[in-house]
Amino acid sequence: MLAAVESFARRGYHATTTRDIATAAGMSPAALYIHYPSKSALLSEISRTGHQATLDLVERAAAEGSGPVEQMRQLVEDFTRWHARGHTVGRIVNHELHALPEEEFEVVAALRRQIEETVRRIIEAGVAEGSFQVPDVRTAARAVTSLGIDVSRWYTERSSETPEELGRRYGVLVLRMLGAAI
Amino acid sequence: MLAAVESFARRGYHATTTRDIATAAGMSPAALYIHYPSKSALLSEISRTGHQATLDLVERAAAEGSGPVEQMRQLVEDFTRWHARGHTVGRIVNHELHALPEEEFEVVAALRRQIEETVRRIIEAGVAEGSFQVPDVRTAARAVTSLGIDVSRWYTERSSETPEELGRRYGVLVLRMLGAAI
Repeated sequence: MLAAVESFARRGYHATTTRDIATAAGMSPAALYIHYPSKSALLSEISRTGHQATLDLVERAAAEGSGPVEQMRQLVEDFTRWHARGHTVGRIVNHELHALPEEEFEVVAALRRQIEETVRRIIEAGVAEGSFQVPDVRTAARAVTSLGIDVSRWYTERSSETPEELGRRYGVLVLRMLGAAI
Repeated sequence: MLAAVESFARRGYHATTTRDIATAAGMSPAALYIHYPSKSALLSEISRTGHQATLDLVERAAAEGSGPVEQMRQLVEDFTRWHARGHTVGRIVNHELHALPEEEFEVVAALRRQIEETVRRIIEAGVAEGSFQVPDVRTAARAVTSLGIDVSRWYTERSSETPEELGRRYGVLVLRMLGAAI
């Protein structure tokens, strides 16, 4: 899987062959084939595990904080740090969605919807208790997840902020964006 | 150029051949070659013109508004609408940056820096006059451009908002994010 991530990141998914991946993994194509019958099987596995881990992280943040403001702060800090640290996998997983086989796409799309729904529920709870104020809950939820996902596009190890610093700053920016008085 | 955009969007840049592009344009590969000697020449042209048009739009917004709050609102509305409408080109231009030949990459990177500097200058002016308040100007500028750029990743013609509605909502969200009292 690591060899596949490296190969996809270097060459792009479409231009990568299973032979490239086998070579990067120090295996023969036949040996790789025992584990993964195709490169789309590898992409599916990377995508499914990546999305599941992200959903877990988001649900944990939503469950732990005391109230919508602290839940959102925690969620954004974790989600941002995660996409900064895992920017190589994040880029593949977010930009090669349409290369997934139909069935796998559905599985991953369902995980993505759950992530967005968790974000939306926190915003709704914040609006209900009067701590958030947004022009449209769905758009606001989209903006929150979009900001975090896009970190994987631009963040590199040469970026001037650590993933932790970026997470904290994004936490403040997002709470303000949602109209929280902080 | 349109045939190249379509081919890159469908297959990904790396997997597209000049023959694919020529076919999509209804030309022979030899006829295409007269205009563009390689597919990277096509990508460069698409990328350069797209970035130049984006910079023009951003600078216009920065020049027109009366004060940082109105300048930023206009900039975000225009930048968002632009990435929603031009999401196919936006996706290619933003995700195939590293496929550009070295020299072309430098030209485009300079245009990107100018876009981000324009955003940063407006934020700095807003902080100086007391209408904005942010944890870090550079991070805030990055968040503003990131939100707009990422629209090209997720926006489709099936999205529930028009580019104009999305622009107006993002304008409000960004002004709040920057601490403006609106």
